[in-house]
Amino acid sequence: MDRVAIIGASMTQFGQRDAWIRELLAEAGQAALADADVSPDEIEHLYVSNMASGEFEGQTGVPNALAHDLAAMPAYTARIDQTSSSGGAGVYAAWQSVASGASDMTMLVGGEKMTHRSTAESTDVIASLTHPVEYKHGVTLPSFAGLTARLYLDTYDAPRESLGKVAVKNHKNGVDNPHAQFRKEVDLDTVLDSPVVADPLRLYDFCPITDGSAALVFCPESVAREYTDDYAVISGIGGATDTHVVHERADPTTMGGVVNSSEIAYEMADLEPDDIEVAELHDMFTILEFLQSEDLGFFEKGEGWKAVEEGVTDRDGDLPINTSGGLKSKGHPLGASGVAQVYEIYKQLSGDAGERQVDADVGLACNVGGFGNCVTTTIMESR
Amino acid sequence: MDRVAIIGASMTQFGQRDAWIRELLAEAGQAALADADVSPDEIEHLYVSNMASGEFEGQTGVPNALAHDLAAMPAYTARIDQTSSSGGAGVYAAWQSVASGASDMTMLVGGEKMTHRSTAESTDVIASLTHPVEYKHGVTLPSFAGLTARLYLDTYDAPRESLGKVAVKNHKNGVDNPHAQFRKEVDLDTVLDSPVVADPLRLYDFCPITDGSAALVFCPESVAREYTDDYAVISGIGGATDTHVVHERADPTTMGGVVNSSEIAYEMADLEPDDIEVAELHDMFTILEFLQSEDLGFFEKGEGWKAVEEGVTDRDGDLPINTSGGLKSKGHPLGASGVAQVYEIYKQLSGDAGERQVDADVGLACNVGGFGNCVTTTIMESR
Repeated sequence: MDRVAIIGASMTQFGQRDAWIRELLAEAGQAALADADVSPDEIEHLYVSNMASGEFEGQTGVPNALAHDLAAMPAYTARIDQTSSSGGAGVYAAWQSVASGASDMTMLVGGEKMTHRSTAESTDVIASLTHPVEYKHGVTLPSFAGLTARLYLDTYDAPRESLGKVAVKNHKNGVDNPHAQFRKEVDLDTVLDSPVVADPLRLYDFCPITDGSAALVFCPESVAREYTDDYAVISGIGGATDTHVVHERADPTTMGGVVNSSEIAYEMADLEPDDIEVAELHDMFTILEFLQSEDLGFFEKGEGWKAVEEGVTDRDGDLPINTSGGLKSKGHPLGASGVAQVYEIYKQLSGDAGERQVDADVGLACNVGGFGNCVTTTIMESR
Repeated sequence: MDRVAIIGASMTQFGQRDAWIRELLAEAGQAALADADVSPDEIEHLYVSNMASGEFEGQTGVPNALAHDLAAMPAYTARIDQTSSSGGAGVYAAWQSVASGASDMTMLVGGEKMTHRSTAESTDVIASLTHPVEYKHGVTLPSFAGLTARLYLDTYDAPRESLGKVAVKNHKNGVDNPHAQFRKEVDLDTVLDSPVVADPLRLYDFCPITDGSAALVFCPESVAREYTDDYAVISGIGGATDTHVVHERADPTTMGGVVNSSEIAYEMADLEPDDIEVAELHDMFTILEFLQSEDLGFFEKGEGWKAVEEGVTDRDGDLPINTSGGLKSKGHPLGASGVAQVYEIYKQLSGDAGERQVDADVGLACNVGGFGNCVTTTIMESR
């Protein structure tokens, strides 16, 4: 079977943007079409990854608006929502549209507009994804992160400083990403002395609230060759859920959705964790980078923190993680984040990552919805 | 290639329900699993068609909640939103998940919980799908329907009464649907004398606001045979958009999304409009049944009204349309409607439609988002 290729990608400036969701999506969509050298009327399916344009902005029907704004009619459109992993779910939907033969040219545009709302309002929208039995007691995602971080540090005898070093690393990477929300280094003391949010986690352990959009163009590999010699293929992709009620998990330091989605992706790609050369992980909270790097099989359980301490995941380490700056410094516009992860891997595999470039032919993106409630894992290879 | 089969289906009671969206989805999901004789742990992908659980109920992340409530973890989940055609978009997503090889057992559950909000609040959520250039002037979907009905009656010299006869026919069909919101006949005078909503359309030209859910179980035909001899196959499916700004359409009495999506579906199924023996159309407003029956190629442009006048689309006519009662009497819980359309065709093709049974081996469902902004058309055949 023809593999599914990515032949173009874009992301907008992430941060506080003076533009509505429709404008952000159109900006990324137009840039991705230009990057792929594809005209709007070639698009057969157009997916939009977005969690909550209705709640944030009172605007629904954004896929139709985008088809109109890009002059892509009569392309079929739909919105894909999987909360904070809407982007990864969109990648999976786009992959399926091509792999099923339904579309020979699919565009995915992910985006979210959040900063016009207060942090309390935004947090309330995000918290509505949690299970009512936890939500009504005020247990939000940052609470889960704090509880899990405490358990992880205690269980695996990891120092608090190791979490801070995730923030330091990802901020350092973000300096070289022109689209990142924060392009400044932070030192460990700044992280460790920042205000407590959910003990033991502090302000710099959390990603910001962000506006932004990112887009990708997909087609069968046989079609890709007509457009470019410079494409990447999705060689493995999978998705999986874990309990919606987080406290029901047997071991809260393991994310079952990461384990199960990556097993599907590794099997499809016929690859092992050791084959991965660069990865974008969902560092919404610093602790999540440890959990994912272990649950993806990169490191033994309880040893992800050592990899960060030893520089293994630095840009010049054996397995660079979050070369883009991650959600931590790049920002986290919910529906865009999973798309922007794949954008970064695509750029790395294409040798087009500028100052951030690492040497890699195989990359992985892991996008986490909720607190690991649903996860998509995508493995890509340079052609 | 293995065709995609449907091996089980369910729908809940439609109407005013004392249950939240999570409960409605779980009710339909459990019933569909029972109907298919499939256990939750066999489900690999679980899609939820829903437009606005966040806006209506302050609850997001419902696909994860459903995976949890059905004990279907670690099945992959995502929400598919295409406004009022979310159900049809969900059918397309489920079809793609199986046809791409990503899943050998996919469940789709569509639902919406609306009646706890006032009509004004619900209408405001729905109206947010329209383009801002029209929405800000107060042009809502019922307004488009009124304007289009006036144009249609004038252009094709159709009597006002013909629109009323759509309501009369669909209410009559609904009497025999145990899940319908309204199970009572209405006479033509009642329709024609009901309060004006958007001239020339009156109250009985509109579908109600509804709570409800419906579910389907999909798998490859080769897998279906292991479960049952009584399945249907999706032989054609397609989706297409029209302008998001409705007033930009060259001919507002033609729905380009219906034309284009059905062309894709007919070609895939290698069938012609004349081959269709039963159809579920999106009669959110009576005028839409005329437009779709013409744009799907069942009748010449401007002659759909004659078919209704002549009884062609009655249950005992040559081409029964909306044997379920349609959105008009069955109700229109946005995310469920497109799923319930396919449920009805599945029941008809399986000879399991009870009092509503017609003689048909080929059926079609047409689900319309917005005012034809995005449309999915699904063609099914009995095995």
